[in-house]
Amino acid sequence: MSTNRVQGDLYSRVQQFHAAQMQALDSGRFDEYADTFTEDGEFRHSPGRPAAHTRAGIAKELAAFHQERFAGEPVQRRHWFNMLNVQEQADGTIHATFYVLALLTREGERVPEIAPSCLVRDVLVEEDGRLLTRSRRVEHDHLPES
Amino acid sequence: MSTNRVQGDLYSRVQQFHAAQMQALDSGRFDEYADTFTEDGEFRHSPGRPAAHTRAGIAKELAAFHQERFAGEPVQRRHWFNMLNVQEQADGTIHATFYVLALLTREGERVPEIAPSCLVRDVLVEEDGRLLTRSRRVEHDHLPES
Amino acid sequence: MSTNRVQGDLYSRVQQFHAAQMQALDSGRFDEYADTFTEDGEFRHSPGRPAAHTRAGIAKELAAFHQERFAGEPVQRRHWFNMLNVQEQADGTIHATFYVLALLTREGERVPEIAPSCLVRDVLVEEDGRLLTRSRRVEHDHLPES
Repeated sequence: MSTNRVQGDLYSRVQQFHAAQMQALDSGRFDEYADTFTEDGEFRHSPGRPAAHTRAGIAKELAAFHQERFAGEPVQRRHWFNMLNVQEQADGTIHATFYVLALLTREGERVPEIAPSCLVRDVLVEEDGRLLTRSRRVEHDHLPES
Repeated sequence: MSTNRVQGDLYSRVQQFHAAQMQALDSGRFDEYADTFTEDGEFRHSPGRPAAHTRAGIAKELAAFHQERFAGEPVQRRHWFNMLNVQEQADGTIHATFYVLALLTREGERVPEIAPSCLVRDVLVEEDGRLLTRSRRVEHDHLPES
Repeated sequence: MSTNRVQGDLYSRVQQFHAAQMQALDSGRFDEYADTFTEDGEFRHSPGRPAAHTRAGIAKELAAFHQERFAGEPVQRRHWFNMLNVQEQADGTIHATFYVLALLTREGERVPEIAPSCLVRDVLVEEDGRLLTRSRRVEHDHLPES
């Protein structure tokens, strides 16, 4: 049995939170990913696509997006985060701004596609000692108006 | 003279441990890399290749692998880790699950090869206040049965 | 209003420092980047180019370099750091040695250029509770004599 807490400072806690969150997403556990948001959470993952709202809405949007983009393809996605900038706010929320690369490996192809490069802005909150994402907005570097 | 300890929480300690460990590997200091494993450590770095065991066995396997793959080529390898998920276990071991990319730069070629994308599972233990890898297993994303 | 301090251990503090520093650089805020160096700071960012000295000199060098390389091009650069190895020194300085990839996204092109792969050596100091870079030297993996 594993314990779910890594002791430590806020910076490490955000890193651990992101790692578990994104390993869930990349494994296709969309409900588990959605549960890392607040109940009224917002997730805007692609420019030109409306934001998803609530845990149920986020899980549904992800299932639809993956079905549309990768249906029937044996692919492994991996999201990489970097340059995590954590800023505690006076209202108790935590702003996390960081770089993201989306990787896609196709079965039998050794070299992954690495694209696009993004900037992500999270608003995190703490509820009952647990970090949750209240909102996540993804900007794509190749789309200037994103 | 440098001190070898960075104070801090477990999450940061695992990051520091991995960084020093992989800088040793990427610099070709295979004995130093092997010494970051427990004496009975196991290292399974490529599917289809048997696991190496013990520090001496790990150092020998790495020397053989590099000789076979890169002999005579002036290359610089760099292993990148990301999305580190650290879970303390009830038995005192530490499970670390994370993403890895292997980069290879050839002399005179500005653009590195970035492949493959992997998932790595470490079992870490603490001995005399020092983290060590008891086992490391690498799964390659493009090889579904790895 | 945000607070500028993330509590925590030195390792996390260096990560936070690097993240804010490089987000400033990648956003073209060269003065803000230069202000993360000590007043007598040294920055050697490319082999074959002389090191820049002092905050004013570093900001000026960056403006010149970007003008020369990217003038008129709508590009988004992103610097990624990895495998951060932090070693406190007996003289009170902090040595940070880490891997870097420079990413470049061009408007409308989804796939970024990822090159070159580098090793960076920072000497950091603490002044009035704030980390600053005293010197930064960048080695390019494809240039053996860098």
